[in-house]
Amino acid sequence: MGKYTALKEEAFEANMQLPELGLVLFTFGNASAVDRDKGVFAIKPSGVPYTTLKVEDIVICDFEAKIVEGKMRPSSDTKTHAVLYKEWDKIGGVVHTHSTYGTAWAQAIKDIPIFGTTHADHLIADIPCAPPMKDEYIQGDYEHMTGYQIIDCLKDRGLDYNEIGMILVGSHAPFTWGATAAKAVYNSAVCEEVAKMAHLTLQINPNAATLKEALKKKHFERKHGKDAYYGQGC
Amino acid sequence: MGKYTALKEEAFEANMQLPELGLVLFTFGNASAVDRDKGVFAIKPSGVPYTTLKVEDIVICDFEAKIVEGKMRPSSDTKTHAVLYKEWDKIGGVVHTHSTYGTAWAQAIKDIPIFGTTHADHLIADIPCAPPMKDEYIQGDYEHMTGYQIIDCLKDRGLDYNEIGMILVGSHAPFTWGATAAKAVYNSAVCEEVAKMAHLTLQINPNAATLKEALKKKHFERKHGKDAYYGQGC
Amino acid sequence: MGKYTALKEEAFEANMQLPELGLVLFTFGNASAVDRDKGVFAIKPSGVPYTTLKVEDIVICDFEAKIVEGKMRPSSDTKTHAVLYKEWDKIGGVVHTHSTYGTAWAQAIKDIPIFGTTHADHLIADIPCAPPMKDEYIQGDYEHMTGYQIIDCLKDRGLDYNEIGMILVGSHAPFTWGATAAKAVYNSAVCEEVAKMAHLTLQINPNAATLKEALKKKHFERKHGKDAYYGQGC
Amino acid sequence: MGKYTALKEEAFEANMQLPELGLVLFTFGNASAVDRDKGVFAIKPSGVPYTTLKVEDIVICDFEAKIVEGKMRPSSDTKTHAVLYKEWDKIGGVVHTHSTYGTAWAQAIKDIPIFGTTHADHLIADIPCAPPMKDEYIQGDYEHMTGYQIIDCLKDRGLDYNEIGMILVGSHAPFTWGATAAKAVYNSAVCEEVAKMAHLTLQINPNAATLKEALKKKHFERKHGKDAYYGQGC
Repeated sequence: MGKYTALKEEAFEANMQLPELGLVLFTFGNASAVDRDKGVFAIKPSGVPYTTLKVEDIVICDFEAKIVEGKMRPSSDTKTHAVLYKEWDKIGGVVHTHSTYGTAWAQAIKDIPIFGTTHADHLIADIPCAPPMKDEYIQGDYEHMTGYQIIDCLKDRGLDYNEIGMILVGSHAPFTWGATAAKAVYNSAVCEEVAKMAHLTLQINPNAATLKEALKKKHFERKHGKDAYYGQGC
Repeated sequence: MGKYTALKEEAFEANMQLPELGLVLFTFGNASAVDRDKGVFAIKPSGVPYTTLKVEDIVICDFEAKIVEGKMRPSSDTKTHAVLYKEWDKIGGVVHTHSTYGTAWAQAIKDIPIFGTTHADHLIADIPCAPPMKDEYIQGDYEHMTGYQIIDCLKDRGLDYNEIGMILVGSHAPFTWGATAAKAVYNSAVCEEVAKMAHLTLQINPNAATLKEALKKKHFERKHGKDAYYGQGC
Repeated sequence: MGKYTALKEEAFEANMQLPELGLVLFTFGNASAVDRDKGVFAIKPSGVPYTTLKVEDIVICDFEAKIVEGKMRPSSDTKTHAVLYKEWDKIGGVVHTHSTYGTAWAQAIKDIPIFGTTHADHLIADIPCAPPMKDEYIQGDYEHMTGYQIIDCLKDRGLDYNEIGMILVGSHAPFTWGATAAKAVYNSAVCEEVAKMAHLTLQINPNAATLKEALKKKHFERKHGKDAYYGQGC
Repeated sequence: MGKYTALKEEAFEANMQLPELGLVLFTFGNASAVDRDKGVFAIKPSGVPYTTLKVEDIVICDFEAKIVEGKMRPSSDTKTHAVLYKEWDKIGGVVHTHSTYGTAWAQAIKDIPIFGTTHADHLIADIPCAPPMKDEYIQGDYEHMTGYQIIDCLKDRGLDYNEIGMILVGSHAPFTWGATAAKAVYNSAVCEEVAKMAHLTLQINPNAATLKEALKKKHFERKHGKDAYYGQGC
């Protein structure tokens, strides 16, 4: 077994979850997993269909997005993943999809308002939509700067990446992260479901109010922090 | 075979129907079944994915939500189930989901109007949306008080829990119940379908009128009461 | 092989197509097939889930909706089927579903406008929505009168049942028919798809115009009548 | 192996992808593949369900839409395919579907605006909606003229068929093409997904702006042209 086999398998499994959860059409998405000790992450190769993807196709890169191991070209979004791993040292996985409802909100350039407990179970802020990138960043090192677009948006909003695992990049689509690649995939599915529910909520009631503070706090704390009582505590 | 095996199997089967019917994403839901003679109910353990759930994982609790048997922590919504079993002595099962359309109506804090016979086949009132809970109840014994939020809403509306198997809790999501756990699951699926149809009805005709009295009565009585002629009479 | 076995099989196959095509939830629908020579039709028993339905459960009735053969109670909508077979001597099958989009239009009490060639490939009128039934018909022989509600609506609109295989009954849901039970099922699926497309068309363009006459004529005649050139001519 | 077996297989595989990708109901669609050396294309027979379609049913036609080989009648849209192959000598496949969202935009007679990078990854113009055809063309050689309706629309907009693989025909539905039949199928799925996202974008934000020039250029060039870096470069 190779030095990076376990990491490649983790990235492979996370990638294969994306079509299973209905989050990607064709190759419109990618997942990665990091190994902090080795200073590398494993990511999907670019443009390879999920139906033919194999563990050994997964590419290993360092945090400068340089290929460390692998015969294929890594995802065209590799530099975005690299920046997030480099800047945020507590994340273990990153996912990017063009999932339908999340992408529609990104195209509408609107934050997804927090309307209910489904949302608050996962984060207690609106899901932020970073503004579309500036022309000089697009024409420059685009994917690298996409990472900083995400990081800067969280900073501007005063949000902590440990408490919010998802963002929309305006005119583009969602990016999510988490303690593991599997958790980042989970956050992608949550983002899509919450995006759909928020859209329907506004269709049913265009004046829908956002969630009251007490419910935000209660639901988030049920699942997170020292007094969490959701799950099996492991 | 253990004392509670049959009850656990009933709860297990009901829980497994939830993902099959498309009513839950990941662990966003739970079903329970009661044994009135033994004074206990069986409920899903908290945060366990449906893909790995086993009959023996099901937790047995009493009507004070105390664990009677089981190695896992029960659903974080256990106290809500307990209150409903305690107060409503004719129900045999309770289900809670965050199904997409039902949750959107709950987030919109709107009753689901009765627009057609699909709805009237199951209940002849609008599906009520209980108001979001008061802050003191949220900060106090939240899940326990959620049960009373449901019970009080029905009382305020003059509705009988035997004639209406579903409710929305404002800003949260649907809860349903029935004579058996399977019937409570059935009601969850009906609630979701009726929620979707009502949303579409208003999209097509924002001035859509609710169902006339004669059709409400006819369709409900086809399926319920002494002159019912739907089904095989068993 | 019994006298009605082939007919029961035809009805059974048609019924089993309904869940497969996503047109029914639980038992919300029924299909029947007629044998004109024997003066009977075969219909789904009432309230029996599709997952357990067997050929031998299918009930044989005459055109007065009297049971001719079968141990189970026939569909609660049997009298509607009986009236249609009795009055329209060229139809071979009838289907009733509560399919989501068709039912939403019925609940909105709106005809489905003919917006495109998908619609015109099958019928060249708007899909009519019969008005909700009068109270005296609802309180009287309801399902029998539902048949006449459908027949009268077509008469009022000057429509020929041979050229239009589908209708909505206001506040209720779609009914469809055809030369065979399979064709009636096909029409149910077409009705649902056309209902969804028409809804989306109006969402995208609230002022969308209905189809021009030349396209209505062309598409309908491609598939129907003596100069049809769609299909294999058999 | 017959002279056209490989071509028939290519067309067969492309056609079978259409129901798998959820792009067709029943027989509402057709795919073809061309062999430029032999001057023929292979197309689905008319009205044959995908569930029973076999490789040997595929019909071989020349660019005048005359049958060269095959026992069945070719798709009623064969002349449209023939015109596109004749006029556009670099395309290898053509697909026509009545996919739900693409058809809704066609029925709304609206171009699909370019709102995001998902769209720009594939084409950098709005997806054009050709006007509904003139009456004399409908009454004349309809399917032949449909081909010219598509070609003329691109000309009028100054668009190059090599850079845009999809169009809507007003009041009708999408047509797509590509270097191979498989690529034309891919474009049909992209068209449907982009159509759905654009609809949702406008639902969420009726004033949504179209994509900025820098992002259009960047995303299209990531995937196309000499500096493309998406995929494996093969």
